[in-house]
Amino acid sequence: SRSINLAVIPGDGIGQEVVAQGLKVLNAVLPQDVKLETKEFDFGAKRYHATGETLTDADVEELKQHDAILLGAIGDPSVPSGVLERGFLLKLRFLFDHHVNLRPSKLLPGVATPLKGQPEIDFIVVREGTEGPYTGNGGSIRTGTPHEVATEVSVNTAFGVERVVRDAFARAQARPRKKLTLVHKNNVLAYAGHLWTNVFNRVAKEFPEVTTDYIHVDAATIYLVTDPGRFDVIVTDNLFGDIITDLAAAVSGGIGVAASGNINPSREFPSMFEPVHGSAPDIAGQGKADPSATVLSVGLLLRHLGFEAEAARIEDAVSADLAERGETVRTTEQIGDALAVRVAR
Amino acid sequence: SRSINLAVIPGDGIGQEVVAQGLKVLNAVLPQDVKLETKEFDFGAKRYHATGETLTDADVEELKQHDAILLGAIGDPSVPSGVLERGFLLKLRFLFDHHVNLRPSKLLPGVATPLKGQPEIDFIVVREGTEGPYTGNGGSIRTGTPHEVATEVSVNTAFGVERVVRDAFARAQARPRKKLTLVHKNNVLAYAGHLWTNVFNRVAKEFPEVTTDYIHVDAATIYLVTDPGRFDVIVTDNLFGDIITDLAAAVSGGIGVAASGNINPSREFPSMFEPVHGSAPDIAGQGKADPSATVLSVGLLLRHLGFEAEAARIEDAVSADLAERGETVRTTEQIGDALAVRVAR
Ligand SMILES: CC(C)[C@H](C(=O)O)[C@@H](O)C(=O)O
Ligand SMILES: CC(C)[C@H](C(=O)O)[C@@H](O)C(=O)O
Repeated sequence: SRSINLAVIPGDGIGQEVVAQGLKVLNAVLPQDVKLETKEFDFGAKRYHATGETLTDADVEELKQHDAILLGAIGDPSVPSGVLERGFLLKLRFLFDHHVNLRPSKLLPGVATPLKGQPEIDFIVVREGTEGPYTGNGGSIRTGTPHEVATEVSVNTAFGVERVVRDAFARAQARPRKKLTLVHKNNVLAYAGHLWTNVFNRVAKEFPEVTTDYIHVDAATIYLVTDPGRFDVIVTDNLFGDIITDLAAAVSGGIGVAASGNINPSREFPSMFEPVHGSAPDIAGQGKADPSATVLSVGLLLRHLGFEAEAARIEDAVSADLAERGETVRTTEQIGDALAVRVAR
Repeated sequence: SRSINLAVIPGDGIGQEVVAQGLKVLNAVLPQDVKLETKEFDFGAKRYHATGETLTDADVEELKQHDAILLGAIGDPSVPSGVLERGFLLKLRFLFDHHVNLRPSKLLPGVATPLKGQPEIDFIVVREGTEGPYTGNGGSIRTGTPHEVATEVSVNTAFGVERVVRDAFARAQARPRKKLTLVHKNNVLAYAGHLWTNVFNRVAKEFPEVTTDYIHVDAATIYLVTDPGRFDVIVTDNLFGDIITDLAAAVSGGIGVAASGNINPSREFPSMFEPVHGSAPDIAGQGKADPSATVLSVGLLLRHLGFEAEAARIEDAVSADLAERGETVRTTEQIGDALAVRVAR
């Protein structure tokens, strides 16, 4: 009999509320013969204030015992910027080698976009998750003086670039349009740009059915608001991916519906699924947060674990719910209940 | 009597066409007693193919003899990506210490935006122009092999950050709303982020009338499409500035009207003014390019040289022309003529 051993990290702010709904829908969608075991972890601002810890070695060992991780959000204004981000979120991405950061953008019918004319938007971004300017490789001398010099080193390896580019080509190959766009800034970041462009062109030869193109990251932001329909699959580096996926979320329904997966395709370590939105302390505890992004992240989680039919049911449920939502204001729990009912049908 | 000694670099593609209109309007707006001397330079793809040169030491010495530089656009598909960008454009920005890269965004009445509801947009971005990931400080080992490692180093100095932050505060202070937003990614790029944030907070104390806030670059792209009215002045690093100003141009009327200045406030070396758009080889030579961005760049140039009234006349002319333009399709020259007539009134 099948089973899922899930680590659950509600985290801070609205993380608690949306994860509760994600679990509700997960329970509702799973067939009876699948045994779901969940273990909740208390990472985030509260634990940090109580113990000074963000993620210990023992935590990491325990998380490793799970098939996947569902994360709400980490971050609170009471903690200095970066402490939880680097000490927990990025640390896990690096330790568990989450090199495929998958972020789908689909403007569903009935969903509001800031763009005129309700354009067709349906693309996925494959963001590299373990390299680039995110490695923490930098430093500062004469810190705090008028002579300070601070550096940040973007580290890019053929190994790291090739595996994520290959993953993106495979995803493009599996989609009807079969189109892959490389987003970088190779006219300025010549060394990293050269590596990305070379690897991309080389791997492209193995996927003759996939149409490819290249766009500088600055121009990509223009296309995302003037012609988002041109994109099918985008592959890009860690920082550019961070920036364009927030913009992509904004134009395709907002971060209330943007899901993401921090994926280790080899399954050597558990992959982690999380809504793109943060902990939103301003609306925490008020039952106002939209749990759709978390529920869609549960969908990505299920697909990663091989539950394709259940993943599709979740996507259809969110889609139908959004289409019928209109101007109705519902609580986090009401939306979760409605989605649980839909997926159980 | 007053005089302007102007270096003119039409460059590639539509650069030729739009610069001709920029000069036409400049001639029309200047009072009779101002002596305008222009010297044209042939930098760009043609010269590169003919001589292999992008910018020689002798060129630099000659350019230095001018009060300012008007640039059309540099870049052509026949030249490998980056060669002209780094060999000419960035080289000049660095050699002439253009540390204030000024990019205003104003959605003028009657101008189309991809955003719903014609939001009010009126902000300026002060982009650092001589540091960050643009320094060319990087490298690659085992290039072209499966073991390649390519790095890019973002270099940030207290000196460089402070002067641009100070410039931005002064600009915010001079505007009615007096609001300055720092855009960075200090939760991930901790060393550079710390330096930028510290310097920003320290300089803020000298400008008590200016309201300040901080936004991560990814979130900034969301605001630019959902609430661009929240911005008044933005100060940011070289790469983030590159990315968000393309997006800012897209939402506030498109790159057809986006002007920029590469400014050395000390006037030790000539500043350079250019439209944000590139050489657009696909429409070059067809008289289709909108010269408004170049004409507005001439406006920034005049303001930099102290011709405030003439700068304002240019802005008013472009504004009025855009408001009356409607669906009429005009050639590059017709738009230039119309603007020349307006500024001469
Ligand atoms: C919180 C932050 C470290 C993170 C990132 O930059 O990757 C977030 O913006 C994201 O996109 O998941
Ligand atoms: C052409 C390129 C080097 C340049 C930049 O990245 O600065 C351009 O995009 C710009 O914004 O002026």
